[in-house]
Amino acid sequence: MNTINDRIQLLRKKLKKENIDALIIPSNDPHQSEYVSDFWKIRTYLSGFDGSAGTLVVTDTEAALWTDSRYFLQVDKQCKNTVVKLHKQSIPHAPEHIPWLCNQLQRGAVIGLDYRLFSLSQIEYIQDTAKHNEIKLVDSGDFIDEIWPQRPDKPTQLIIDHSINHCGETRISKIKKIRQELITESADYNFISSLDEICWLFNIRSSDVDYTPLVIAYAIVGLKKTYLFVHNHRVDENLQADLKNDNIELHSYDSIFEKLKHLTENKKVITSSSTLNFACASSIKGKLILKPSKIQYLKSIKNEVEISNAKSAMIKDGVALTQFLIWLNTHLKSETISEYELGKKLESFRAKQALYKSQSFGAIVGYKSNGAIIHYSAPEENSSIISNNGVLLLDSGAQYENATTDITRVLWLGGSPTDELKTNYTLVLKGYIALETAVFPKGTTGIQLDALARIHLWQHGLNYGHGTGHGIGAYGMVHEPAQGFATSTTTSRGSAPHEENQFTTIEPGFYKEGEFGVRIENVVISKKVMETEYGTFIGLEPTTLCPIETTLINREMMLPSEIDWLNTYHKKVYSELEHSLNKEEKAWLKDKCQEVN
Amino acid sequence: MNTINDRIQLLRKKLKKENIDALIIPSNDPHQSEYVSDFWKIRTYLSGFDGSAGTLVVTDTEAALWTDSRYFLQVDKQCKNTVVKLHKQSIPHAPEHIPWLCNQLQRGAVIGLDYRLFSLSQIEYIQDTAKHNEIKLVDSGDFIDEIWPQRPDKPTQLIIDHSINHCGETRISKIKKIRQELITESADYNFISSLDEICWLFNIRSSDVDYTPLVIAYAIVGLKKTYLFVHNHRVDENLQADLKNDNIELHSYDSIFEKLKHLTENKKVITSSSTLNFACASSIKGKLILKPSKIQYLKSIKNEVEISNAKSAMIKDGVALTQFLIWLNTHLKSETISEYELGKKLESFRAKQALYKSQSFGAIVGYKSNGAIIHYSAPEENSSIISNNGVLLLDSGAQYENATTDITRVLWLGGSPTDELKTNYTLVLKGYIALETAVFPKGTTGIQLDALARIHLWQHGLNYGHGTGHGIGAYGMVHEPAQGFATSTTTSRGSAPHEENQFTTIEPGFYKEGEFGVRIENVVISKKVMETEYGTFIGLEPTTLCPIETTLINREMMLPSEIDWLNTYHKKVYSELEHSLNKEEKAWLKDKCQEVN
Repeated sequence: MNTINDRIQLLRKKLKKENIDALIIPSNDPHQSEYVSDFWKIRTYLSGFDGSAGTLVVTDTEAALWTDSRYFLQVDKQCKNTVVKLHKQSIPHAPEHIPWLCNQLQRGAVIGLDYRLFSLSQIEYIQDTAKHNEIKLVDSGDFIDEIWPQRPDKPTQLIIDHSINHCGETRISKIKKIRQELITESADYNFISSLDEICWLFNIRSSDVDYTPLVIAYAIVGLKKTYLFVHNHRVDENLQADLKNDNIELHSYDSIFEKLKHLTENKKVITSSSTLNFACASSIKGKLILKPSKIQYLKSIKNEVEISNAKSAMIKDGVALTQFLIWLNTHLKSETISEYELGKKLESFRAKQALYKSQSFGAIVGYKSNGAIIHYSAPEENSSIISNNGVLLLDSGAQYENATTDITRVLWLGGSPTDELKTNYTLVLKGYIALETAVFPKGTTGIQLDALARIHLWQHGLNYGHGTGHGIGAYGMVHEPAQGFATSTTTSRGSAPHEENQFTTIEPGFYKEGEFGVRIENVVISKKVMETEYGTFIGLEPTTLCPIETTLINREMMLPSEIDWLNTYHKKVYSELEHSLNKEEKAWLKDKCQEVN
Repeated sequence: MNTINDRIQLLRKKLKKENIDALIIPSNDPHQSEYVSDFWKIRTYLSGFDGSAGTLVVTDTEAALWTDSRYFLQVDKQCKNTVVKLHKQSIPHAPEHIPWLCNQLQRGAVIGLDYRLFSLSQIEYIQDTAKHNEIKLVDSGDFIDEIWPQRPDKPTQLIIDHSINHCGETRISKIKKIRQELITESADYNFISSLDEICWLFNIRSSDVDYTPLVIAYAIVGLKKTYLFVHNHRVDENLQADLKNDNIELHSYDSIFEKLKHLTENKKVITSSSTLNFACASSIKGKLILKPSKIQYLKSIKNEVEISNAKSAMIKDGVALTQFLIWLNTHLKSETISEYELGKKLESFRAKQALYKSQSFGAIVGYKSNGAIIHYSAPEENSSIISNNGVLLLDSGAQYENATTDITRVLWLGGSPTDELKTNYTLVLKGYIALETAVFPKGTTGIQLDALARIHLWQHGLNYGHGTGHGIGAYGMVHEPAQGFATSTTTSRGSAPHEENQFTTIEPGFYKEGEFGVRIENVVISKKVMETEYGTFIGLEPTTLCPIETTLINREMMLPSEIDWLNTYHKKVYSELEHSLNKEEKAWLKDKCQEVN
């Protein structure tokens, strides 16, 4: 028996019955989420491939899985001996399968898509490509249900009322700000489909998707009433009463389409095109005003409570990392440990901290050459064995009930580092310092600042193939839009203006294939440093508290001002953490934070 | 008698006759040129205002002149006692007059526009704004002719065949590259309306507009034939024969519209939306393929002949500036001179150099507080009197028959500079050095690099309100697209990728209103510095040869590497210029280029 082939066979029968010639199955949910709940892992179910990015296209003769180079080996393994064939995307997330599919199909053929899983612009692109061949699109709906016997349910666990002590602003106050935008734009409704925006607006959380405390929901804010669409029975009596008190009507998740049709006739509806799915877009009967999300902007600017919570979470993270690093140091003296187990061990130290909920993403534990694989995920079985020599890259983070963390450190485990490693590590550190110490006008965009973190590497003909930083949520998404640091404006990390009181990561890196990976990452907060006749100027302050490996620094490449920065940072790490550490831990940290001359 | 009022009166009569309720008169010519020939100075003729930017809107009751803050005082003066009323634009070049006009007009009114003077996107914007009020647009054509008795002719002087010794590539070779694009895009024609692109492609020059050796023309490149549209009788027999030999057909300038209609029926036409006017767009009957201009890209990358010519022009410019600075030094010992006269004097030194043709723009001579006015132009009468004290900003450039130059220096004329001036001057210099010494991957855009020149100023809460640099032509436009350094991607200076062998200015500045202006500008050439597995890396080399004022440097703020840069640059200036100088000049320059410790 071949499970995958049987599933594809079943799907093809169903397609035939529905007169559909091809079905496109993407990776995402109806909310364009980064991580999706099991209910929407349709592509994984049908193909066997469980990587984070990929699209399956099924026709009568083909079962084509499109994904990018990060996953080629994984697909080879997971789809071996099945009818699923790998198609190599040259650009991650690019819709390279669409022209391919249109060439495969006969004139007049029909492509099926679940309109909820595609954005407005995706559908427009497919329509445009398909029309040359007179190929039609139909909304297939979610008929996967019929061929997936033990399909997981949509999440049904209770929704948590996110306490004001955690979030610092009432939902009424937040909704008022959205209503203000309705008034300014002479609009009637704001329709919201992004899960983290809904969770922020209503001060609710749950655990519907991996690593992120989100709730599967839709929402509509009107001038008087607000509507929240969630699975029935997920709201307990207390929260029901609170919501009612705030004039928020509860509706079932699946009723969004009918409600949209009903409410929006001849009305003006503001929404954000980046998360709007085509099924919702088609249900809006009035005038659509597509604009960048106001909530995304408001959410990115943290209030005093959120800032204070984030800072105390950083202390907890720092304590856990200190304890973990001491443990690792001792352990490696006589034993070894696999990358996978080390990730679990790190998690166990964080889990001892108050309010700890989960990892904020799957930790990246990359020993020696594995550190050079940017999206490395150590497999549960047969991951590399770490011993007391060489270099280890560790990128991890936590969800606390009131904050989210993300940190990368490179550790030297023993032996003598090469000059090349030290040079490259130092260039990355200099880049980190250059960006973190920059002062810039409020409103400066990420693409304007990104090069500060690269310029030292560039000078040596080196570079790294990822952005330099991303926003981070408050018990929210570890990758939170909009601001960040990036080399292009195709992502909001490049194009969004930086403002005061935003939390953003700075994480330059360098990767030498087959040898080692280096990345240094702190979360920083943006602060007003001065106001002059030339504008308001913003600076960045590190909030992450963990010593930076100094064994790998080539001292001669560092300017006095950079050494000063390092010593000041280490002084801060020690003074913020010492009160939460025992004597032994303090001694270890003091040593790690000692002044470099 | 009031000339301006009479002209407006005449225009209104004409509008009435033509059933037009409002006429919009922009500043540009049909080619979206930076400088326009006298024939198209319609707005100046009708309003009396001769600034470079402004739009006049004439209705039955209003004569509204829209311009930005640079010109408010000038309009007050030039339009005094006329019916022309100043309307203050908050954003330069923004079409703020369109909503205003649509509000002024009655439902169903008619706006007249000469469709040749508006781009496709401008007309689309106006249509979109006007339609809410059922206002219609009509092509007024150029009926100004009838009410402008002594209107200058379109330029008629002979067109010069730009020698291969000057430009380094035959027109046939260039046209072949454009044909290659036609083949790649399965297109039939490339339509070109940008004057500097036409001059580059055909290797022709003339003097149709101020400061720039352009020819008023249109061109069409087909797969076999090429068409050049210029005023009759401007091409002598030799050039006619050469063009014929290259299979280039000559047509009269005004026949472009008919020819476009005739040629393009059912054909695919590539053109660039940034310079395409609406009259031409409407004449293209086939399929329009709007894309960034290939010629703009090809032209920005200079060949060996152009590079060598530019370098020798820099020596001539350096010699002229040396002689001028020596003269100024001597002159100010006992006499004074006005800003305006100083500009003329500088021009006279450059004019002595071989192949000198003209200034490349109106020199900016800003003494003390005038230096803080970014677009300052010293008036012919009553400009400030310069004596042997204080600070002078000097931004000037030349057209040589084979190259174009542009340089800014700040001179200290005597007395004791304030600490503030020295600090700010030093920050600007540090910014210049940071950008000029940067190494970056080929393809990096201007917006990614711009901050390198600002970061030192930002650190002190300071900034400047202009871009950091622009491309420069080869006996072409002093502001040549596409590459540059800028804070946004709305201009190509921010969005265009940097490549090898491009000439670009680096010109950070700082302006203290009412006190002084600082700007340091060199032209640099981009060069490949290395090729690694991480890409091709580009560096910038200064080509401008003129000492940098060292009196204003705060030595303590400079890093050793910055002092090294300064000494290396001055060594280069001296060694490249000394062979072209007499003994006295050499001695003066040696002193100015002496090592700083």
